Amino acid sequence: MKQLNIRLEPKAGGVCAVPGIRAAGIAAGLKASGRHDLALVAADRTVAAVAVQTRNQVKAAPVQVTAQHAANGRARAVLLNSGSANVCTGPAGLALAQESCEIVAAELGCEISDVLVCSTGLIGVPIPREPFVAAIPRVVGALSPQGGDDAAKAILTTDTVAKQAALTVCEDGPKGPASCSIGGMAKGSGMIAPEMATLLSVVTTDAPLAGPLSRSVLREAVDRTFNRISVDGCMSTNDAVILLATGESQRPPSLAAFTEGLVAVLDALADGLVRDGEGASKVLHIHVIGAPTEPDAIGVGKAIGGSALVKTALAGGDPNWGRVLAAMGAGPIEFDPGQVTVAFGGVTVCRFGIATSFDHGQAAIALKGPDVRLTVDLGQGTAEATFRTCDLTYEYVRINAEYTT
Amino acid sequence: MKQLNIRLEPKAGGVCAVPGIRAAGIAAGLKASGRHDLALVAADRTVAAVAVQTRNQVKAAPVQVTAQHAANGRARAVLLNSGSANVCTGPAGLALAQESCEIVAAELGCEISDVLVCSTGLIGVPIPREPFVAAIPRVVGALSPQGGDDAAKAILTTDTVAKQAALTVCEDGPKGPASCSIGGMAKGSGMIAPEMATLLSVVTTDAPLAGPLSRSVLREAVDRTFNRISVDGCMSTNDAVILLATGESQRPPSLAAFTEGLVAVLDALADGLVRDGEGASKVLHIHVIGAPTEPDAIGVGKAIGGSALVKTALAGGDPNWGRVLAAMGAGPIEFDPGQVTVAFGGVTVCRFGIATSFDHGQAAIALKGPDVRLTVDLGQGTAEATFRTCDLTYEYVRINAEYTT
Repeated sequence: MKQLNIRLEPKAGGVCAVPGIRAAGIAAGLKASGRHDLALVAADRTVAAVAVQTRNQVKAAPVQVTAQHAANGRARAVLLNSGSANVCTGPAGLALAQESCEIVAAELGCEISDVLVCSTGLIGVPIPREPFVAAIPRVVGALSPQGGDDAAKAILTTDTVAKQAALTVCEDGPKGPASCSIGGMAKGSGMIAPEMATLLSVVTTDAPLAGPLSRSVLREAVDRTFNRISVDGCMSTNDAVILLATGESQRPPSLAAFTEGLVAVLDALADGLVRDGEGASKVLHIHVIGAPTEPDAIGVGKAIGGSALVKTALAGGDPNWGRVLAAMGAGPIEFDPGQVTVAFGGVTVCRFGIATSFDHGQAAIALKGPDVRLTVDLGQGTAEATFRTCDLTYEYVRINAEYTT
Repeated sequence: MKQLNIRLEPKAGGVCAVPGIRAAGIAAGLKASGRHDLALVAADRTVAAVAVQTRNQVKAAPVQVTAQHAANGRARAVLLNSGSANVCTGPAGLALAQESCEIVAAELGCEISDVLVCSTGLIGVPIPREPFVAAIPRVVGALSPQGGDDAAKAILTTDTVAKQAALTVCEDGPKGPASCSIGGMAKGSGMIAPEMATLLSVVTTDAPLAGPLSRSVLREAVDRTFNRISVDGCMSTNDAVILLATGESQRPPSLAAFTEGLVAVLDALADGLVRDGEGASKVLHIHVIGAPTEPDAIGVGKAIGGSALVKTALAGGDPNWGRVLAAMGAGPIEFDPGQVTVAFGGVTVCRFGIATSFDHGQAAIALKGPDVRLTVDLGQGTAEATFRTCDLTYEYVRINAEYTT
């Protein structure tokens, strides 16, 4: 990749960091807790839009509706609810997802197909129609350029904190300075697997993007971020990442610069997801180096990050590199165990596939968290990749044994 | 399959249920706890033998030595130790595995290549040579026709109970009654995945089996038993199932009858493994019916049994069929979600992909354990299969956060 002359400047506001985008989050009464549970993100007019959605064969009603509505490459608004995933809810669930788009469209004065919809929460539990339908005009009325925080809160389920990120991409191009804004929010704490989107996320920008290009850019950014994290390896039925692009930037940066900015926003959100993974007390940054190719490095990282034994060792603060090698060996990527070197932080614990003596005190510090760095050198090339996972704790079990139908 | 006229009569003795097989288990000082840690199973003479071993790319030293020694299709004895897996231990580990076979061979008066070896325990930790080597003549001296129990105890790691099974296969054949004995032991509590062998197991029989046939029979039996269970989805570096066949049965049953008996023994051991899975409080019997083909049914069962969310719901006694469908949908087997019906025990909780009202009291009883039955009807055919897993509990996390390098 050629050198880019860009600066990424952090901004506040999440999805509302982009001019012309308003958002809102309210309590519609869908969650028993009474917390915020209905969010809307809307552009001032219909803009370019693209959605990347779950590959799960069991697809939520809103996933099906959004797939249809996003097919024309444009949208005005995204409606998101928590409290029910609206999946396995039959024709009634599908009808309700459709009806919710109709109400938003009537309120905003746009086409029904310009409204996208996402749901998250329990599977098989219908969204209660009355409070949901009644709340939609309210959430439209609450739209505000300062509504990013409320919207980010309203999409949470077992998450403990809202996840937002935004920045300005500044590029010194051949024709002078260029820039655009990118903002985003995401939720997702369990059912986070490195497959497709694995969460709900809405990303906004004033860069001009349309058609197949916007899809390939979003797909690439998702592949480099949300697809390189895992919490529990369980793929959701509701995953969706939706990008709204107003195109109103006066002097937008190059596509390459925009892509880097998009990756940075999604990476910040992905990091937040793993950090707030169900029960997580530590993030493991698995840096695979010395790989023949980048897909090899990613594959090895996924195999390690998906291992329950690696994740419990992390919880216990144990530099258990044997489980790292066992997980790699069980994975699909071929490697020579005799060439593998493993380090936690700066402490090498395995050299060329064999135990090496190390300072256990230093290793204990390296595994203390909240950020643990694992470096796996395959000794077979120059490609590399980073994959992130979190520890598997009592708290994960508690949350998921109790989060009940 | 044609109807077999057979009876399977339970026997005592584990591997020693077969005439001409002796076993022993002693404390060699390899485990810090001082418990039994060295086992030997030996035939009175060199007999037919076959080994099915791990597909992990990282292979323990004993796996490599056994692969070489079993290549000629015969063996006299199997030496097994717990306390160290002898993997990632370099040339010294390989040399020690080889040396241990040499000592057994010298003691028994057989070829070195007639001794097979297995290890289980921590990865990357060398077996302490002195106590190991010194104990081998002792374990040979302890060989006894009553040694099955001690041998089964000596191979345990985080297991809480020894696993043994044995039976007599009685067949009323066209030429009159025929019979053989089959005995087995197994260990395995964590690192249990539905890949290849996933544990250590020695199985003995007086049926005549040799050459490629014995391999295909053992492979089929493993595929129908040990490959249909999961504890944590982590494939071990040390898995091995070894069958010793003395051939001394005077009137052995047909191959089909023997195979059914072998499957019954391995199935009993596999059930014991899941039941004693790390931290397990319940066994989930996932019965997939209405599948187009048996591989489809197995694939769906594996996808469900591998889901951390299904396993935590089981721990919580929650009839969370949404997670069952989500896990199925994330798996590789195609199905129509609208045709799927799910029941816990006799309680149908999802009909044709949609929630159905059910008696929560009855469902709570069905999920109480220790044996929970989940039936998933794909509504697409007549093939079926059963897959077993256990719940994911606090105790699993505790064991694996503490079981340390």
